[in-house]
Amino acid sequence: MNPRISLIEPSLIRAINDRKKPGDIDLGLGEPTLPPDMEAFEYAMAWTRENGSRYAPNAGQAELRELIAAYLGRAEWAIGGLSAGNVCVTVGSEEALYLAVKTVCDPARHEMLVIEPGFLAYPKIATLEGVATRSVALDPDNDFQPDAGRVLEAVQPETRLIVLNTPTNPTGRVWPAEELRKLAAGLAASGREDVFILADEVYGEIHAGQEYPATIATWHSNTLVAGSLSKSNALTGLRVGWLAGPAEVITAAIKVHQFLNTGVATFAQRVAVFLFREGRLGDHAPIYRANREHMLAAANRSGLHVIPPEGGFYGFLRLPSHCTGGSIMGGSISAAERIIEDKRVITVPGVAFGAAGEGWIRISWVAPVEQVEEGIRRIGEWTREELR
Amino acid sequence: MNPRISLIEPSLIRAINDRKKPGDIDLGLGEPTLPPDMEAFEYAMAWTRENGSRYAPNAGQAELRELIAAYLGRAEWAIGGLSAGNVCVTVGSEEALYLAVKTVCDPARHEMLVIEPGFLAYPKIATLEGVATRSVALDPDNDFQPDAGRVLEAVQPETRLIVLNTPTNPTGRVWPAEELRKLAAGLAASGREDVFILADEVYGEIHAGQEYPATIATWHSNTLVAGSLSKSNALTGLRVGWLAGPAEVITAAIKVHQFLNTGVATFAQRVAVFLFREGRLGDHAPIYRANREHMLAAANRSGLHVIPPEGGFYGFLRLPSHCTGGSIMGGSISAAERIIEDKRVITVPGVAFGAAGEGWIRISWVAPVEQVEEGIRRIGEWTREELR
Repeated sequence: MNPRISLIEPSLIRAINDRKKPGDIDLGLGEPTLPPDMEAFEYAMAWTRENGSRYAPNAGQAELRELIAAYLGRAEWAIGGLSAGNVCVTVGSEEALYLAVKTVCDPARHEMLVIEPGFLAYPKIATLEGVATRSVALDPDNDFQPDAGRVLEAVQPETRLIVLNTPTNPTGRVWPAEELRKLAAGLAASGREDVFILADEVYGEIHAGQEYPATIATWHSNTLVAGSLSKSNALTGLRVGWLAGPAEVITAAIKVHQFLNTGVATFAQRVAVFLFREGRLGDHAPIYRANREHMLAAANRSGLHVIPPEGGFYGFLRLPSHCTGGSIMGGSISAAERIIEDKRVITVPGVAFGAAGEGWIRISWVAPVEQVEEGIRRIGEWTREELR
Repeated sequence: MNPRISLIEPSLIRAINDRKKPGDIDLGLGEPTLPPDMEAFEYAMAWTRENGSRYAPNAGQAELRELIAAYLGRAEWAIGGLSAGNVCVTVGSEEALYLAVKTVCDPARHEMLVIEPGFLAYPKIATLEGVATRSVALDPDNDFQPDAGRVLEAVQPETRLIVLNTPTNPTGRVWPAEELRKLAAGLAASGREDVFILADEVYGEIHAGQEYPATIATWHSNTLVAGSLSKSNALTGLRVGWLAGPAEVITAAIKVHQFLNTGVATFAQRVAVFLFREGRLGDHAPIYRANREHMLAAANRSGLHVIPPEGGFYGFLRLPSHCTGGSIMGGSISAAERIIEDKRVITVPGVAFGAAGEGWIRISWVAPVEQVEEGIRRIGEWTREELR
């Protein structure tokens, strides 16, 4: 067997989910519960009746690649205007992340930096590719505020790729423009424009503010942006995502992509064409904005500290120290387990997002509002009962 | 960049296709031109209206995995009865091939054997994974008859995986049961049951005989079978395939699969559920059987030698020696180029399938019968004109 596979530890999220019983309140979910836009499916159906279901080009249908390029081009890019050649349509953003790591890293000499707390797949993908990873922890006492300085300090000669997720899963933080500018400027000042930044912007459409989160692509040429329709349009099952960046890197990524899976389902690409063409990627943002207020109010009522999310649909909740065995190191797994057993609420232990997340738990507010409110109420109750 | 990517040579098939002009007869196609079964799409649409488009489990919906297990279980398997745990639903058979190579091979010590002429993706996937490949050539003077002896002779201590494609692209040969039994017995006799066989059976439903081609899985436990609905049901754009084999290997493959792309589109899985449940995988076979007769008759009329296909929808055509510059080594690329320029017929040079295919060209008969007949007539004309 490939020895790298045994290095992949079983998913903590799955272990927690396995304890779920009927009737439990699930705040562990990583996907929207909203119904999908059936108009897009009806359009794809009509298209398929007329055109069948044949291969699309490996990199995606030209029309879809152009629509994605135009969409991402709403922000200024350091590499200039985007066109179809800057985009590869992928099987969700998961494949986009995989392609980025496999394309730009040479396992023999490169390492990847991951910012923690962060999405657990990043280091696992690197491990599968034989690429070493190192983590940069943000400051829990500052609610994991994005900090270019910490990232820049961690860059070593062998650093080839930095994964930067904004809005961030699990913290809900959005990297402000000034921090991104600082990061790009810092790399340039130290002659490290060669370092690639993999900007995972999969939660980009779900932002609490009035404007789209800034993208590092504006200031740093060697940026690869990953995204998808999974979160923005409640289409996790569609498996349509993208990787965008400098044309020569995307061309190399497409060579990998064609041997990974040939290409993305043609029907799914037509669903995506409809949503981009009709400008529907922001359709769900107002719903999440409203639910965010309910979530924060519920946490407030229960005296719980949740980082006010700037984007995405997660709340990162700091466990009171008496709930983690008195120590900030350790305890988020047992806390999550006890919250299930005692209160029948599913959450994700913060340590699932790296050591920096220890002492926290992640809750999502994609469930119906009443369930989110009730779940948070029960978590608050549990923390008070733990005092006794 | 990952240095392995630059080792992947540009596709010869693509280079040939780039020369295609409107009105050309395309016998280079690698996908069916039949319309898909819209009833299956209507079913998936109705299901999506009711259930939405959320993530399926990483390995695929349990119902689909069970249907695939039951379908593949029509043959006896050396590992015993199949169940859902023996199946991972993949993004076409391409991903299944990729998963197999990545899961069972340790690039540091394993090599993969490919039988030539063979599908060009096999060695390219291995190259992307850093796995060495070695080729075993079948005998052109015997119409590339499947030969277990040749394969067994090539097995070395470092051999970990043998790719065996039946029916074979491009030769149309089917591995007879006795050769497969000989191969399994030979591995066992030399204490090499540890060698995995990746049985690419993607053309398995399109067979000229009355019975399904035999599978090596019947005699060799360490077999991984790859398949899909792309060819059987003219659904190349659906991107639904499978990898099946021993449960512990499939479990490891699923760990890779989840980081490659999370899973297969839920809508597409429902299309597949319908086709398996309704038993429609053999629906197109009679059409190909009829077209095969027309293709062979046309080749006969033109005095061309095409290996009578036992499965699949390709004909492998031996170029007369005067058409390859008098030498069997070299010439299939220039022959294919001249057939386009002089006769406006697209074919694939045999060397695209490895050195063993040199001196041959591949024609497919998925185009309408009249076009296939006219294309072959023009190729015959061209070979006669080359005599002058």
